[in-house]
Amino acid sequence: MAAQPTPADKFSFGLWTVGWQARDQFGDASRPPLDAVEAVHKLAELGAYGITFHDDDLIPFGADNATRDGEISRFRKALDETGLVVPMVTTNLFSHPIFKDGGFTSNDRQVRRFALRKVLRNIDLAAELGAKTFVMWGGREGSEYDVAKDIRAALDRYREAVDLLGQYVIDRGYDLRFAIEPKPNEPRGDILLPTVGHALAFIESLEHPELVGLNPEVGHEQMAGLNFAHGIAQALWHGKLFHIDLNGQRGVKFDQDLVFGHGDLLNAFALVDLLEHGGPDGGPAYDGPRHFDYKPSRTEDFDGVWASAAANMRTYLLLKERAAAFRADPEVQEALAASKVDELRTPTLNPGETYADLRADTTAFEDLDVDAVASRGFHFVRLNQLALEHLLAAR
Amino acid sequence: MAAQPTPADKFSFGLWTVGWQARDQFGDASRPPLDAVEAVHKLAELGAYGITFHDDDLIPFGADNATRDGEISRFRKALDETGLVVPMVTTNLFSHPIFKDGGFTSNDRQVRRFALRKVLRNIDLAAELGAKTFVMWGGREGSEYDVAKDIRAALDRYREAVDLLGQYVIDRGYDLRFAIEPKPNEPRGDILLPTVGHALAFIESLEHPELVGLNPEVGHEQMAGLNFAHGIAQALWHGKLFHIDLNGQRGVKFDQDLVFGHGDLLNAFALVDLLEHGGPDGGPAYDGPRHFDYKPSRTEDFDGVWASAAANMRTYLLLKERAAAFRADPEVQEALAASKVDELRTPTLNPGETYADLRADTTAFEDLDVDAVASRGFHFVRLNQLALEHLLAAR
Amino acid sequence: MAAQPTPADKFSFGLWTVGWQARDQFGDASRPPLDAVEAVHKLAELGAYGITFHDDDLIPFGADNATRDGEISRFRKALDETGLVVPMVTTNLFSHPIFKDGGFTSNDRQVRRFALRKVLRNIDLAAELGAKTFVMWGGREGSEYDVAKDIRAALDRYREAVDLLGQYVIDRGYDLRFAIEPKPNEPRGDILLPTVGHALAFIESLEHPELVGLNPEVGHEQMAGLNFAHGIAQALWHGKLFHIDLNGQRGVKFDQDLVFGHGDLLNAFALVDLLEHGGPDGGPAYDGPRHFDYKPSRTEDFDGVWASAAANMRTYLLLKERAAAFRADPEVQEALAASKVDELRTPTLNPGETYADLRADTTAFEDLDVDAVASRGFHFVRLNQLALEHLLAAR
Amino acid sequence: MAAQPTPADKFSFGLWTVGWQARDQFGDASRPPLDAVEAVHKLAELGAYGITFHDDDLIPFGADNATRDGEISRFRKALDETGLVVPMVTTNLFSHPIFKDGGFTSNDRQVRRFALRKVLRNIDLAAELGAKTFVMWGGREGSEYDVAKDIRAALDRYREAVDLLGQYVIDRGYDLRFAIEPKPNEPRGDILLPTVGHALAFIESLEHPELVGLNPEVGHEQMAGLNFAHGIAQALWHGKLFHIDLNGQRGVKFDQDLVFGHGDLLNAFALVDLLEHGGPDGGPAYDGPRHFDYKPSRTEDFDGVWASAAANMRTYLLLKERAAAFRADPEVQEALAASKVDELRTPTLNPGETYADLRADTTAFEDLDVDAVASRGFHFVRLNQLALEHLLAAR
Repeated sequence: MAAQPTPADKFSFGLWTVGWQARDQFGDASRPPLDAVEAVHKLAELGAYGITFHDDDLIPFGADNATRDGEISRFRKALDETGLVVPMVTTNLFSHPIFKDGGFTSNDRQVRRFALRKVLRNIDLAAELGAKTFVMWGGREGSEYDVAKDIRAALDRYREAVDLLGQYVIDRGYDLRFAIEPKPNEPRGDILLPTVGHALAFIESLEHPELVGLNPEVGHEQMAGLNFAHGIAQALWHGKLFHIDLNGQRGVKFDQDLVFGHGDLLNAFALVDLLEHGGPDGGPAYDGPRHFDYKPSRTEDFDGVWASAAANMRTYLLLKERAAAFRADPEVQEALAASKVDELRTPTLNPGETYADLRADTTAFEDLDVDAVASRGFHFVRLNQLALEHLLAAR
Repeated sequence: MAAQPTPADKFSFGLWTVGWQARDQFGDASRPPLDAVEAVHKLAELGAYGITFHDDDLIPFGADNATRDGEISRFRKALDETGLVVPMVTTNLFSHPIFKDGGFTSNDRQVRRFALRKVLRNIDLAAELGAKTFVMWGGREGSEYDVAKDIRAALDRYREAVDLLGQYVIDRGYDLRFAIEPKPNEPRGDILLPTVGHALAFIESLEHPELVGLNPEVGHEQMAGLNFAHGIAQALWHGKLFHIDLNGQRGVKFDQDLVFGHGDLLNAFALVDLLEHGGPDGGPAYDGPRHFDYKPSRTEDFDGVWASAAANMRTYLLLKERAAAFRADPEVQEALAASKVDELRTPTLNPGETYADLRADTTAFEDLDVDAVASRGFHFVRLNQLALEHLLAAR
Repeated sequence: MAAQPTPADKFSFGLWTVGWQARDQFGDASRPPLDAVEAVHKLAELGAYGITFHDDDLIPFGADNATRDGEISRFRKALDETGLVVPMVTTNLFSHPIFKDGGFTSNDRQVRRFALRKVLRNIDLAAELGAKTFVMWGGREGSEYDVAKDIRAALDRYREAVDLLGQYVIDRGYDLRFAIEPKPNEPRGDILLPTVGHALAFIESLEHPELVGLNPEVGHEQMAGLNFAHGIAQALWHGKLFHIDLNGQRGVKFDQDLVFGHGDLLNAFALVDLLEHGGPDGGPAYDGPRHFDYKPSRTEDFDGVWASAAANMRTYLLLKERAAAFRADPEVQEALAASKVDELRTPTLNPGETYADLRADTTAFEDLDVDAVASRGFHFVRLNQLALEHLLAAR
Repeated sequence: MAAQPTPADKFSFGLWTVGWQARDQFGDASRPPLDAVEAVHKLAELGAYGITFHDDDLIPFGADNATRDGEISRFRKALDETGLVVPMVTTNLFSHPIFKDGGFTSNDRQVRRFALRKVLRNIDLAAELGAKTFVMWGGREGSEYDVAKDIRAALDRYREAVDLLGQYVIDRGYDLRFAIEPKPNEPRGDILLPTVGHALAFIESLEHPELVGLNPEVGHEQMAGLNFAHGIAQALWHGKLFHIDLNGQRGVKFDQDLVFGHGDLLNAFALVDLLEHGGPDGGPAYDGPRHFDYKPSRTEDFDGVWASAAANMRTYLLLKERAAAFRADPEVQEALAASKVDELRTPTLNPGETYADLRADTTAFEDLDVDAVASRGFHFVRLNQLALEHLLAAR
């Protein structure tokens, strides 16, 4: 049996997840609104440690200052009562029709200026609530038609925007970093910075790249058929895993936002194994929130909403438990060695060896028994089966 | 009528393209081998300017030095006779079973050392033949099983390899740059550096990033459902479009390597428009080879091989002609303005404006008529229809 | 130049297409409601011949009878004024939350009974307005979770529903046929009858299969990576192309509903060629409405809505014109023969030949020069290039 | 711990699976040939009950009669020694270049006649070896170019071929049924009868539909993003699940042929649950062979080949054990009821009820509390989580 979730597990949820009214592309809402205060209390009861939100989740778009202050005050009170924290805040540059061609990269300059103002204001709120990460999902930054968007100009504007926001955070002395959330498409036909890779490359072009990292989402990478665990590994390699969105997706299709694990379960296992055991000495590779960005299915009532919230955490803990058993199994350790998984950590060159030395080493090329080396098996299938059996608690 | 191709069009072909014997995953060869000398002569006749090859295309894997020298000498003679150049050479770290778990990132260190040696030798040949670009497609660098490959270690080894090769080129004084060719999968279940974005990010981590760029391939990005023209635009934005592989792909499936344009024709139009008119003052954004990396279908005999080679060039020239007409049409120019495509090139901030100024500008936020701005149409569909009609020569 | 659309072209549009307010999964409406009467007038002006609707498009869900009658009466008047016809009516079993687990196949039997009643009422309206086709898109008939839906029971209920509706139409003497519209997913994770094939098979299980055919949609098949022209050909082969939904889709992703041709243009060309020239003696293979089921992009205002409606028709007419030229070109005819396209229409057996005769024919097997036959080229690439060049009016 | 496989489990393997030399699209063989006799002995040791083959797996294409008889005789002897049976034989109309445009539907009529002869001969062998199922995978029946194949003519020829073969089997009195194996693409750009649905529809058009069913393969449906368990359920619903190919696939990409379960594990669980518990009274829904059509990865030597063969069987048995526990759990039974999964088995109409009765039932429509019904939750997420936890043996 997996343990019950506790705040030490650092599970967090978006207010828009449990609060989703289940209005979709083809249908009307199937659930009434959920009050933010109730969401805070309920998530705390279930064992979460954090709650996150888009500005417009908490405060209706265009609300006056009194309404705004009232909503924030009620929310803060609920946080205080429960001990829940706000580790991350994010911005909504996608729901209102003014952002129909994007926020930072709309062809319409007035929209871009408005977007910057909206985000600046939201950054203040994020800092005020103690958030350490500011996520930016540019879901409307993109196009349907290739001739309608100058992609390089759009990237210039994207950079201009992020540089401005970075300078603002520096000048204000906020303890806040940015995390870009890539997605390949939907709602736009093609979205800018469509994958973990594109966003990583973009970040290197910024004035303050150290301020900006990633918030990859399971389903978003899988919508492009990419391996999410690989993407996270590359993000870690670049030191850019600032936050993570966990959920479930069943292949290349629309964004499903299922419960974590209710999609590609083997890849979810590999992900948890990486997050929990990919660090130095087999410890965690990531110590930030385990944030669930999912949607309780439209078929569910509020019982189902809370059952789904619990299911996210329980699945994570189960996978964590199984990953620990996998790593601890001597047969697995032997199999990893047989597959030379560790050998890849040894540099290809010997200490101090130069390419000249390598060229002089006839055992590396001229005298190598190529056929013998080529015929060695890697035993990868056996290793994968061991992983599957640990996942299934069949060992 | 589109013009006939001439060397000034800079069309090049891989020796392995017209020379593909059409052995595939499920079937035996349907064509006999093609002699490299014949390929050179035939491509020259058709109007190409360049030919490229993997080491193993020209010289059988494991050939002795005499065989090797003989093949190179025959090939050079054909180049001299025809005037064809070798603008690019690439390396085969994927066909021989020794590379079954990769070359630079095989779990087996002996394989990695062997791979480096093979590539060093091939770089000498590339330089000797005057190639300016050395393409590296790491088709076997990847995995099928998430637990069988330490991705971060693999990226360490990838970097170690490319850094070594870069240093070698610098020390030798070769006028040669590297171009990494991303692909999401096939033949491996997941390939490292799966997209243009991932490869761009990787390059920034190298010792000599200036030496390394990209060789994106149409079908490879489209296999991940990504917009190829967008990917090329981002590569250009980073200054990393060192080479390009043109072909056709019909959606998210196995790598088809069809003739250029025989896939997503509208995206091919946008691509040619970008390459030919995306530069300063509407000139070319890229002046390197237009390289076709395709496979003449297995149903074809040699007549079909040469017809398909010609079709690649003819389609490119047709699209180039249509893109020129599109750009020259006053109605298009008016439509681009109506869609504010140019407005995106104007910075969001005024010259000298700071975020403080922006915050003080009430017209940007407090006094903006949000509904009025939101209700403006972008006229993108009309613009796209104009593109389609120029593509179809219907205007 | 392609001709202007006229009613003789039989172009029809869904009221929900031009009337879409552009509320999507991630955003609010960007356009105000469009009055049905205005839609009728505007489409008539543009050259359409028909308009179609879901019950809930015309009459709000749950409206009282007076409202209902009033809406119908206003709509009829507009039809009379313009001459527009209603060739098809369809039913909405997907927007209201009561249908969140489907209509005919909801696990909840009360929902299923309600759905049948709603559809029976709508069939009366369809007949009253002279529609000849009643389309059923079962967008909510499906599941996200494999254990939550007994698929065989669902197919039983689906059959029960369609059989009941068929009997009703027979008994009433309505001149109305049903057309099932397949879709693989979205809004459900997996939808029942996901492709043209699955729906064709289902129809054969019905009590009155002759009453039921298909309404395939371009994008829906392409969302599964399937070739739409192939799907239409198989539907025609089974005599089941009762209606068609034309639009554009850019690959395996969410349902884009772009303008016809603004997706896979080569496949759109093949489709129009099939519809217009796939019948006896090269005449049309389908004589029903050319129905556009698309969504004007959320970036567009009403000018863009009408421009997009016109673009659908214009693109169809352009492709029709190009297909006619393709078929008339003697070089194409020669190329078709060289590719043996026509030879496939000749039965494999000679007239009267039995398998025994075939077994006795040693020229077919024992004495066949297998290598000679195997080495023949099919010249398919050349033929495809001819199609591309006719599409581009480059010949 | 799952039980060891025994012949009672009816596990069978293709000779081409363990015998695959790992030559792929981009690389040469990494394993030597495997003798058929050794394959038989080894599979028997591992607990399999059956072995299957393509004609060309056992007897080289074009072998003379003496060679042919010798190979068959050796193979029979191995079967006799081990007790292994041959439940299925299949035909290779895809490897030899003569079939480059297909077998039954090649544009070249001589090829079609040759293909029929090859298959007739192979049917005799199948019957002789006691096979009950003759699988036909038409991997080359398709096209890359829409204008190069008349799909309806191709379906005519396909039908002509299958009708001829059916008549042959009837006349010979063979106890043999046909099973068509659908696949959407690869090696052809688009393959005819691309999904379970398309093949089911085709079968209904045959002279002897009762003779012909399906052999669906996990990966083939998943390559089109379709739900395999759904496809199998529909095949069962039509009475057409004649055989099944089990393997693993990781999404929409090239055909991976991984070990069963090494792809979408949750769907594999649902599949085994359906096969083992989807029949009357919760018994098996299918009693034929559990046939593995997979490829041991190219990275593996023969140890890995046999480990992968064992992994297929072990994973199946584990999933079977977990499905049994899932079905036996009272909480699951309660959850199924709460989700009304069983209620879908109750007809929508009451016994004897007509549509007239339904129309007269005001509780069904006029008096239904629509909002109350709409607000009911289906509790599907909870049910799915129960399935996941049984799969993980976490309950």
